[in-house]
Amino acid sequence: MRTSIATVCLSGGLVEKLHACAEAGFDGVEIMDADLVAAFESPEEIRALCARLGLSIDMYQPLRDVEGVDELAFADNLRRAEAKFDVMERLGTDLMLLCSNAGTATVDDESVAARQLGELADRAARRGIRIAYEALAWGRYVNDYRDAWRLVQRADRPNLGVCLDSFHVLSRGHDPSGIEKMDPAKLFFLQLADAPELQLDLLSWSRHHRLFPGEGEFDLVGFLGHTIRAGYTGPLSLEVFNDTFRQTDVNRTAQHALRSLNWLSDRTAAENGWTTDRLDASQDPTGVDFVEIAGEDLSAIEQQLDQLGFAFAGRHRSKAVRLWRAGDARIIVNEQTPRPGARLRGLGLLVGDAEAAARRGQGIGAPSVFRRTSAGEQHLSAVAAPDGIEVYWADAAISRSWQGEFDGGYPAVERASDRPEGDGLRGRIDHINIATPWQHYDEAVLFNTSVLGLDPEAVTELPGPRGLVRSQVMRTADGAVRLAMNLVPPTAPLPARHIAVRVDDALSVARHARARGLRLLPIPSNYYDDLEARFGLDPDFLSELADLGVLYDRDATGAFIHFYAPTIDGVFFEIVQRIDGYDGYGASNAPVRLAAQPLTAAPQG
Amino acid sequence: MRTSIATVCLSGGLVEKLHACAEAGFDGVEIMDADLVAAFESPEEIRALCARLGLSIDMYQPLRDVEGVDELAFADNLRRAEAKFDVMERLGTDLMLLCSNAGTATVDDESVAARQLGELADRAARRGIRIAYEALAWGRYVNDYRDAWRLVQRADRPNLGVCLDSFHVLSRGHDPSGIEKMDPAKLFFLQLADAPELQLDLLSWSRHHRLFPGEGEFDLVGFLGHTIRAGYTGPLSLEVFNDTFRQTDVNRTAQHALRSLNWLSDRTAAENGWTTDRLDASQDPTGVDFVEIAGEDLSAIEQQLDQLGFAFAGRHRSKAVRLWRAGDARIIVNEQTPRPGARLRGLGLLVGDAEAAARRGQGIGAPSVFRRTSAGEQHLSAVAAPDGIEVYWADAAISRSWQGEFDGGYPAVERASDRPEGDGLRGRIDHINIATPWQHYDEAVLFNTSVLGLDPEAVTELPGPRGLVRSQVMRTADGAVRLAMNLVPPTAPLPARHIAVRVDDALSVARHARARGLRLLPIPSNYYDDLEARFGLDPDFLSELADLGVLYDRDATGAFIHFYAPTIDGVFFEIVQRIDGYDGYGASNAPVRLAAQPLTAAPQG
Repeated sequence: MRTSIATVCLSGGLVEKLHACAEAGFDGVEIMDADLVAAFESPEEIRALCARLGLSIDMYQPLRDVEGVDELAFADNLRRAEAKFDVMERLGTDLMLLCSNAGTATVDDESVAARQLGELADRAARRGIRIAYEALAWGRYVNDYRDAWRLVQRADRPNLGVCLDSFHVLSRGHDPSGIEKMDPAKLFFLQLADAPELQLDLLSWSRHHRLFPGEGEFDLVGFLGHTIRAGYTGPLSLEVFNDTFRQTDVNRTAQHALRSLNWLSDRTAAENGWTTDRLDASQDPTGVDFVEIAGEDLSAIEQQLDQLGFAFAGRHRSKAVRLWRAGDARIIVNEQTPRPGARLRGLGLLVGDAEAAARRGQGIGAPSVFRRTSAGEQHLSAVAAPDGIEVYWADAAISRSWQGEFDGGYPAVERASDRPEGDGLRGRIDHINIATPWQHYDEAVLFNTSVLGLDPEAVTELPGPRGLVRSQVMRTADGAVRLAMNLVPPTAPLPARHIAVRVDDALSVARHARARGLRLLPIPSNYYDDLEARFGLDPDFLSELADLGVLYDRDATGAFIHFYAPTIDGVFFEIVQRIDGYDGYGASNAPVRLAAQPLTAAPQG
Repeated sequence: MRTSIATVCLSGGLVEKLHACAEAGFDGVEIMDADLVAAFESPEEIRALCARLGLSIDMYQPLRDVEGVDELAFADNLRRAEAKFDVMERLGTDLMLLCSNAGTATVDDESVAARQLGELADRAARRGIRIAYEALAWGRYVNDYRDAWRLVQRADRPNLGVCLDSFHVLSRGHDPSGIEKMDPAKLFFLQLADAPELQLDLLSWSRHHRLFPGEGEFDLVGFLGHTIRAGYTGPLSLEVFNDTFRQTDVNRTAQHALRSLNWLSDRTAAENGWTTDRLDASQDPTGVDFVEIAGEDLSAIEQQLDQLGFAFAGRHRSKAVRLWRAGDARIIVNEQTPRPGARLRGLGLLVGDAEAAARRGQGIGAPSVFRRTSAGEQHLSAVAAPDGIEVYWADAAISRSWQGEFDGGYPAVERASDRPEGDGLRGRIDHINIATPWQHYDEAVLFNTSVLGLDPEAVTELPGPRGLVRSQVMRTADGAVRLAMNLVPPTAPLPARHIAVRVDDALSVARHARARGLRLLPIPSNYYDDLEARFGLDPDFLSELADLGVLYDRDATGAFIHFYAPTIDGVFFEIVQRIDGYDGYGASNAPVRLAAQPLTAAPQG
């Protein structure tokens, strides 16, 4: 279906916005009255610019507070409408959004409102203009799409129809299935916005917290399904007011917006078994293939991996890249960069069909990544995540193939016994914690669901020394892949990211790491007093935790034993052990960890 | 009364927080369990540090989820409590905050809860510890301070009392007058927090949006009055969770916090006619004495003042300072600084008793300002506002006296006719618009109410090209003094501040300014089309507005004609004319103005 976006979603001036929409690949735009009023370019110039950019002007919006008023006020409202019809003629667009009266309505009588809507439509008809009437969620008398629809039927003019906005329907909890009973010829326009579930007044919720489809908690797939089954064939348009998007880069927001529509079209088509608008199927990941750390000199990382019990598994045959392994946990150490400072650079996921996963990522609009490959080497498909991390896909054969490019390491199987201590580490990547700057957070949620096939867990807020840290884990249902996202506010430096490796016996790993000279992140003794207060632990166990600097958590399902290695530039490692059904991340220990770690900006990119 | 603050209000580590509390001048602190747990210092070290800093540890908090549970769970809760009593003995504090059970309560039976509270109190009594029981607004069975009070009476232990928290009482809309019926011997502790009126779930409202007293919409003066009349004599303690304070400088937040308590004590004493805790009376300002602009070379400012019709009113006899005047609007142009860039530096207010106003400002805790004065010159009392602007006070005699220090200007009275055009400007300062960085915004609200004697108008949100701008005018009832505050988000550069001068005929001023070579801020012609659509103005009038670049607004009470001069570094001038009862600021024109002005960071300080 055609894609469109309201200019109010984006930051900057109107001309800047239009360029960004075209560059991102939108088919059309809704031009916001206020954006035009503040622009120095005449309507004729905007029309010509849109024509050159290949953007249709799908709607001009909004006209407000017209119907449900006394006759004197209505006469002035018609005069006001005619002046805006003039502007529309100059812009060369024929569809006007009319919002239900939220400000000046005084006559609570549907016959009056219907007659006034009809009269407005007749005025518009003389100019060849159509009116799309929308029930605002906070409209005075009309605030339900079914009421707007009834008024449109009653007024019964060919150029009067409805505009549906998912926010206004779903925020009020109205059942969208009634859309299917509407006459498709009267479905003039469709605006889409997602939102988090909030207990907040409708106006503030709408003005500050709308999100692009796929980032909130509204069932937009269901909503769009109803609308398409009703016979709607117009553009899918985004109308998202959000404090973040309006403060951030206009081009990036426009691309992000289009990806959300691509995802929504595909998802809706998939759920309904339609063949149009389909992308390659989402490839649910079955595990983490590797994690890649990049930096000019990563010997400190390698020393720590060695201390933690990882085995050196070989150097790459053609690149300054080395592989470390602990059972199924593979860490790639990439020194092919002149930039100092260790940082998380890439992430490999195991899937059934790696090429399809990459095509899906690109189909949704994620930028693809180029990686130098010599002849005979395994090609890996990848896209860049919004936080700059490269995501690669491999099936089991591809994974074996790229691992075969590393020579001179210890064989994987014998690793467990090839060190004097006999403590070879058998592990797997448990989760990866990615600190995401506030302005890319929602985009990252969308990427993780739509491209990586992960689902969000509930948001938690962790108290740190500089305020609450918003944290959300996105994961597969079985927990084989978990990405923990922490939102970094604009005032905070971007912290280090971390890689958590799951083992069978974290205390043993800690003991041996210490024996190999690793000093764990120091933990205050007050923490162990508190642990004793909370859980009444066995004294020997508690004293070993305290001695080593290992943390502990417990809930109704099981227990969690974990510790942190010191941060190296922009990366640190966590070793975790899950006991019984424990499925969390030791959130109650986060304040202690946050207070103990240095607060410095991590190198990125 | 004694002042105290919960360590959770502040950012950073516990030691850092304690230093900041002492430095600001608090008498005591409530130590938050989580702050101690994350600290490397032992309870004994914290006790010794508090002793050295002269801070009493007024309370240890919180113990949660103890009462209203089955006997097995209760036994474990007692064990948990004993472990925290150990910590309290090491800290040397004897008061424990117990929050009503919000998490684990399963037994909805007051007799069980009262018995368990009694048993906990008996355990505490053996250690000489008292328990202050607080009804959380979201407690499972106990969420009303009157219920907590009933349980405390029922348990009837000498060391069991209540803790009152204004947020938990006022957020639920509970009537605080019942506090006066409580036994003063059982009022163990008082926590104070303000908050904006929000439709939001209680927990999010409490965790993210609490404010210091005087910054929100709760009636804390009434609340504190009830508590003191009930016989409470303990400390006034602040417990304010707020995303902003926890991200900002700990010393500054602590000082700000103490100022809010000073204001609240004074205000409560004043309303009740008490003589303790009184500061000098607030001096309601009757007008703006002057506005001061500073910078290395301000000839561009002087040129613009001249073009706008201001008269040069003399140079200061001992300083590189010049005075410009238009009727009652006085602008001081101060070149005694080596820093380039014009910026708003100071503001003079006319009051009945200038010395009392300054003493009040200092009594509340605003930093005083030093200004060089030679012998025989008028001394002006001043304090620094949170945004760095210096605020001076003068009565009519002082104002005349400092004006007398300027020589060589045009006499004020003859100004109107001493230019060939005969258009001498008679004006007054209408309002001053101060862009306030987000982290100082609430502090600035408190300063404006408590020190300057201004009251807040409702908050508005102005759509600008980079998002909504939160704007709030603080003013005297008669409008003689109006400060418009715009919140600057962390991602935006600090914009220029502006001085609005009210005149009788703004069009005439615009005409003459243009004749003298001033080019007004250019306004898009689309704006005038929209003006026509909105108001249907007289064509000649509209065309003169458009020709000059003058803006217009109208509401039910009157009309507003205004225009902007181009920004000079960090300052710009607005000329406004108010017709009939118009009392606004042309908010609907703000998007056009914001889009037309360059978005550059202004020099400050």
